[in-house]
Amino acid sequence: MFYRSLLLPDLRMSLDENDRDGMREFCHALHPAIVAEVLEELSPQDLWKVLSSSDATNQAVIFGFLDPNRQVEIVDVADRKEFTKLIEEMAADERVDFLGRLDEEHVEAILPLMAQAERTDIRKLLSYPEGSAGALMTTEYASLPAALTVAEAFDQLQRQAPDSETIYYIYIVNDERRLNGIVTIRQLILAKRTAKLADIMRRDVLSVRVDDDKEFVASEMARYDFIAIPVVDNQNRLCGIVTHDDAIDVIQDEAQEDAMRQAAVQPLEESYMDTPLLVMARKRGVWLVVLLCAAFGNAALLKRYEWISSQYKWLQFFVPLVLASGGNAGSQAATLVIREIHGRHLTRREKFSLVGHELRVAMILGVCMMLVALTGAFSLVPKLEALIVGLTVFSMVFVGTLTGSSLPILFKQLGMDPALMSNPLIAALSDLIGVFVFYHAALYLVG
Amino acid sequence: MFYRSLLLPDLRMSLDENDRDGMREFCHALHPAIVAEVLEELSPQDLWKVLSSSDATNQAVIFGFLDPNRQVEIVDVADRKEFTKLIEEMAADERVDFLGRLDEEHVEAILPLMAQAERTDIRKLLSYPEGSAGALMTTEYASLPAALTVAEAFDQLQRQAPDSETIYYIYIVNDERRLNGIVTIRQLILAKRTAKLADIMRRDVLSVRVDDDKEFVASEMARYDFIAIPVVDNQNRLCGIVTHDDAIDVIQDEAQEDAMRQAAVQPLEESYMDTPLLVMARKRGVWLVVLLCAAFGNAALLKRYEWISSQYKWLQFFVPLVLASGGNAGSQAATLVIREIHGRHLTRREKFSLVGHELRVAMILGVCMMLVALTGAFSLVPKLEALIVGLTVFSMVFVGTLTGSSLPILFKQLGMDPALMSNPLIAALSDLIGVFVFYHAALYLVG
Repeated sequence: MFYRSLLLPDLRMSLDENDRDGMREFCHALHPAIVAEVLEELSPQDLWKVLSSSDATNQAVIFGFLDPNRQVEIVDVADRKEFTKLIEEMAADERVDFLGRLDEEHVEAILPLMAQAERTDIRKLLSYPEGSAGALMTTEYASLPAALTVAEAFDQLQRQAPDSETIYYIYIVNDERRLNGIVTIRQLILAKRTAKLADIMRRDVLSVRVDDDKEFVASEMARYDFIAIPVVDNQNRLCGIVTHDDAIDVIQDEAQEDAMRQAAVQPLEESYMDTPLLVMARKRGVWLVVLLCAAFGNAALLKRYEWISSQYKWLQFFVPLVLASGGNAGSQAATLVIREIHGRHLTRREKFSLVGHELRVAMILGVCMMLVALTGAFSLVPKLEALIVGLTVFSMVFVGTLTGSSLPILFKQLGMDPALMSNPLIAALSDLIGVFVFYHAALYLVG
Repeated sequence: MFYRSLLLPDLRMSLDENDRDGMREFCHALHPAIVAEVLEELSPQDLWKVLSSSDATNQAVIFGFLDPNRQVEIVDVADRKEFTKLIEEMAADERVDFLGRLDEEHVEAILPLMAQAERTDIRKLLSYPEGSAGALMTTEYASLPAALTVAEAFDQLQRQAPDSETIYYIYIVNDERRLNGIVTIRQLILAKRTAKLADIMRRDVLSVRVDDDKEFVASEMARYDFIAIPVVDNQNRLCGIVTHDDAIDVIQDEAQEDAMRQAAVQPLEESYMDTPLLVMARKRGVWLVVLLCAAFGNAALLKRYEWISSQYKWLQFFVPLVLASGGNAGSQAATLVIREIHGRHLTRREKFSLVGHELRVAMILGVCMMLVALTGAFSLVPKLEALIVGLTVFSMVFVGTLTGSSLPILFKQLGMDPALMSNPLIAALSDLIGVFVFYHAALYLVG
């Protein structure tokens, strides 16, 4: 934000004066992420004009930091040949993400202009299903045969370094590209120059499979503090690597999606501001309508119980309170339990112990809530009625917690995403039980 | 999970037979994160017995992967002298995290046994406030003077590599430790061995300040795809670095905390299962009671309006439905807006445009919800009554969205954390408005 207002006027002046040197200097002097941020303020035409003043390598790096929507806009205004060079220079994983967003027509216009090797690589990467390690990985890693000495390895690395996304880990592969070991650059620097890679490499390499889920890949990287993780096929052949920056992106996206699901919003595919109004309304409306239908179940039940509420008029004062207690306790339990079971395999015993733990918490919470509810209700209605409110609040904290903790586990059991059990859905379900419990408690205790 | 059941019996056998070689082999053969996971299944005594079979460096790495609570348990069972060696070998940032969790007494028992330099380093790191870049960083980075040649730099790195957390970035500092530039290991490998570091280094180094918030540090690292970011004091002197694994931890923790706040749970300091029952009850109970008090406001309002509901009995059937519509729409808006404004500085215009955007969405959602509500209500009550339900649902979607989008912005304006506006709290506030709107709509249209 700060950079934008500072640098933009200067850049606009360079554009007005068609000052190519000024534009090139702008592209080189700053971190590419900052350059990209400032460029996003320009029209696609101007953006390309500035970008094309730089060399292809730098163009590619800046382009990689641009917003996906801006990237697509540039395709139509850029010089086809120069743009193809930019694409060739992009990191393999960013490039395939970009091409995956273009329509067929544009891709077919760009691909033939590229070198055969790059083309094959792109088609291969495009073939992995979205959300898999294969679609996330880059093919630009450093790899060496085990027979080399450390000195020879340094020579080879000089050749590989410009094209590798990271050279911090060097993967040791055999003639069939099977992954046999890993050497870090730190080990290389510390080792004797005559030592063989086979002698210093670590053999038990942790890797993921091309078809592994990207969230699994990110969690493995976070767990082992890796900068990159190798991706292999079912023959243990090295296909690519996933790097730390991709892992962070996956973790951030996942957190956003979870937060939206928790509030009964279908996860947005684009950023908040880039999501069109109607798409935004659909992502939220679907769930609002589902929840409204559940609420009609509730209304029907209340109508059916009119004979109870017409006898005990005070009941209706407390219906929202009783339902909110259950819903709030349920939301808390669901939020904690969904996070606790996420991505884990639970034994039968662990499931029961988890729900049991929640119910013990519910017992404590229920008693506290009952005491507060008793006191509060007593200021509005007579003793016996207040007691019924207190007891129902206790029951509802219990029922809400039970619903909130057991339904996500049940969903997981059925092979569905436990995060589908959003907080408002838990609340809607416990609402139905709430009315039933409250009215029947009144009937039984007063009647 | 999988490793545990496979490796644990073997390890227990080594323990029973007091087979030191077997234990040492176990500690060395696997990734330290896996070793730590298996060790956590043992008693503190056995854990230490296995750990102490290995050398101090490996002990320290495995120890760093242990759960914080298990780390603390070991202090009392370990041999003091051997344990001090382990501490000396730990990464500076992990070590200070660990010592920060110990009580004063234990720290004072360990510190005097350590070398003077380490002690000064620890006391310095312990002095940074929790949640700051200073408390997150490690002091083990690679740094070189600008006057060296590439060949000399490699020689120096051989000495620094064993003690540096990452050598991927080499920081160029002057005699006063002021940060003047940065060189990557990739640049070093590609450069001529006679080139001077001053000529190949990048001079515009992005850095953070020791007192910057850790969430800011993590977001900067994610934004620029850094493996590490330098931390400087107000004189631009290099104090330490924050590495990618710490950034991932911060991002994951932050996501967890946000999810809990969203569901009105005070963020847990420990993992779900490690949180004592009473602490868990307190973290949830505080908010449940606050929300219950808000619900009593609602009950009082309903009691006050008894004269309306006794005339129009059908009103009470739809109270939960009307309130839920407002609460659900509000939760959605709050969740999206809180994420959108997080960590950003918004101008007055941006704030209004954000709320305006939400209200346009609310208009579309309100119309759809009104139509569904009209249809549903018509099956339970006559036309005019159904119309009132439909109109109120429309208003409540609007009111909920307005509350959910404007209150977090208001909180931010007042310098408070917008995430305090949890979804249940938004719902509780919109509930109060809901009853008022619904009853008055009925009075006005039927009465």
